[in-house]
Amino acid sequence: MKNSNYLKALRQEKVSYTPIWIMRQAGRYLPEYRKIREQAGSFMNLCTNPELAAQVTLQPLERFDLDAAIIFSDILTIPDAMGLGLNFKEGEGPVFKHKIKNIEDIKNLIKFNPSEQLAYVVDAIKITKKTLGNSKPLIGFSGSPWTLACYMIQGEGSKNKDFSAPKKMLYQAPEVLHQLLAILTQAVTDYLLAQIQAGVDSVMIFDTWGGLLTPHAYQHFSLFYMTQIIKNIKFKYPEIPITLFTKGGGLFLENLSNSGADCLGLDWTMDLKTAREINLNRTALQGNLDPCVLSSSEDQIHQEVSRILSQAGSHPGHIFNLGHGITPDIDPGKVKFLVDLVHSMSAHYHE
Amino acid sequence: MKNSNYLKALRQEKVSYTPIWIMRQAGRYLPEYRKIREQAGSFMNLCTNPELAAQVTLQPLERFDLDAAIIFSDILTIPDAMGLGLNFKEGEGPVFKHKIKNIEDIKNLIKFNPSEQLAYVVDAIKITKKTLGNSKPLIGFSGSPWTLACYMIQGEGSKNKDFSAPKKMLYQAPEVLHQLLAILTQAVTDYLLAQIQAGVDSVMIFDTWGGLLTPHAYQHFSLFYMTQIIKNIKFKYPEIPITLFTKGGGLFLENLSNSGADCLGLDWTMDLKTAREINLNRTALQGNLDPCVLSSSEDQIHQEVSRILSQAGSHPGHIFNLGHGITPDIDPGKVKFLVDLVHSMSAHYHE
Repeated sequence: MKNSNYLKALRQEKVSYTPIWIMRQAGRYLPEYRKIREQAGSFMNLCTNPELAAQVTLQPLERFDLDAAIIFSDILTIPDAMGLGLNFKEGEGPVFKHKIKNIEDIKNLIKFNPSEQLAYVVDAIKITKKTLGNSKPLIGFSGSPWTLACYMIQGEGSKNKDFSAPKKMLYQAPEVLHQLLAILTQAVTDYLLAQIQAGVDSVMIFDTWGGLLTPHAYQHFSLFYMTQIIKNIKFKYPEIPITLFTKGGGLFLENLSNSGADCLGLDWTMDLKTAREINLNRTALQGNLDPCVLSSSEDQIHQEVSRILSQAGSHPGHIFNLGHGITPDIDPGKVKFLVDLVHSMSAHYHE
Repeated sequence: MKNSNYLKALRQEKVSYTPIWIMRQAGRYLPEYRKIREQAGSFMNLCTNPELAAQVTLQPLERFDLDAAIIFSDILTIPDAMGLGLNFKEGEGPVFKHKIKNIEDIKNLIKFNPSEQLAYVVDAIKITKKTLGNSKPLIGFSGSPWTLACYMIQGEGSKNKDFSAPKKMLYQAPEVLHQLLAILTQAVTDYLLAQIQAGVDSVMIFDTWGGLLTPHAYQHFSLFYMTQIIKNIKFKYPEIPITLFTKGGGLFLENLSNSGADCLGLDWTMDLKTAREINLNRTALQGNLDPCVLSSSEDQIHQEVSRILSQAGSHPGHIFNLGHGITPDIDPGKVKFLVDLVHSMSAHYHE
């Protein structure tokens, strides 16, 4: 297992081809996923059923030669476990029954214990690992404290993506936000440790909304807490690679490179050559095809993949991925084309 | 007029204090604006009535010691003039009656002539200038070709801000998109020239959605066309300063610095010190307070303004602004506090 291309690339060791996995690879673009999702009745039913969650985790690996699986779950399982009452309204995204408005709401949060409240994720990981054996690595994940706080304070996914409620709390009541972030830092740590104990081979922290912040606020309200989590995990499991992904975080790359993470995810707004020049091989880099490219022709996909591979060059620490999750409108045939193309085209960079 | 602090800062000449104006300064946060807006009946009625447009343009200058006025209008007047039929649905943003799906739709666009179709903007500028005299500079503006194309192809403001329709066209049918962008480049040029002839003292190009692109696509589908427009304007009016603002364009700053623009607008995700190090005084810089800060206390506003002024330092080419338009929920009293604070605090940097 340790010699899988994915884990080697995370350690920046020589590989024979560039590994690839795809954010949201177990998702709505797959008809077999939609079938199970329908059987489950709701998205949360699917998340909380370990057998079904394991089943959809493995679906994309049956179709495509992906280099890793990622456990099927949602970043909002933690706020749900803390008592906010998560619901997914069809076509509207996540909505919480309660939201965080003040210090009282924070005090009322249920104490988080992953092996109790999120046993369903732990179990899904164990089942998935049993089926996978040593064939492919399994990735565990969590949202970042700041990103979880965004949803908990907004009370839902911000439709226009500006998350004005948490942004206002940041300026109006920074000490309240810090209290919430400290609690979430402990929760994310415990959650990722539980996932590692259950068998995942690497973990990833999704900081989906870190890019909404000023450099100063990013440092103090997002990166600071993620760095704590990395330290906590490395203390117990120094050999487990950690990937950190701040969407829209290209401008924060210098600081991210010093976070202690083994790998940094990049969206498509920064080219990998520039990123490598700033990063100076402090970490592996993951990314960064614009998901929209998968809606175009094979010729166009070829052209964009070729650009990314040439930017990544012959340095071994590159894991191919999209710059954000795959969208439901994508033809799975294009994904197969992409995965095979990355494997075949990348080989000569690693000779 | 040429000696106004705003125009001097655009030319990177020594000023006695940092000038400030605010994106969307004539807007819904002002009760006197909401009153006129109600009288007009609809947003488009207000835009197309030169007397009323001039009146709301001047409203914020009566309240605050702003260093420039910006003509009240909307970036979508060009697509409307081209026959797409613009409507603003309450609480839903702009919607077009027709949208651009293919080359036929582009051929069916009405030939754009600003002095005919957008005479109302030209007239509003003339009326405003008459009232302003030489007291304060007046800014004209347009959307960038890429940003206009985003709305024209999407057919509306993309609620989740990903503009998947134009992004897909970029990869699926780049030659069609290029045809549209070439037409819009001519239209934006003609529009800005008409505004200059009517009397504006500087112009600004809003590239609100350039930050959705990869560096390669940004270069070819947005910056390339904006550079053409700058050349066209500089050929006729070399003395009129041009500001270019790509929201989320911090990673593209090196290329932006070579665009020929006199000033670059920055959102709040990049600090001005870093920006100046990349920009190397090739242009003035405008920005970049997070608009959310205005919802917090005077102490907090003081702290954030202080940070920005110290990042900008003593270099004269800084125009203070928000990193994006002011939101309707802001108390006008906070705007007065901000404007006066920037003037008083910045003086010692310019001694």
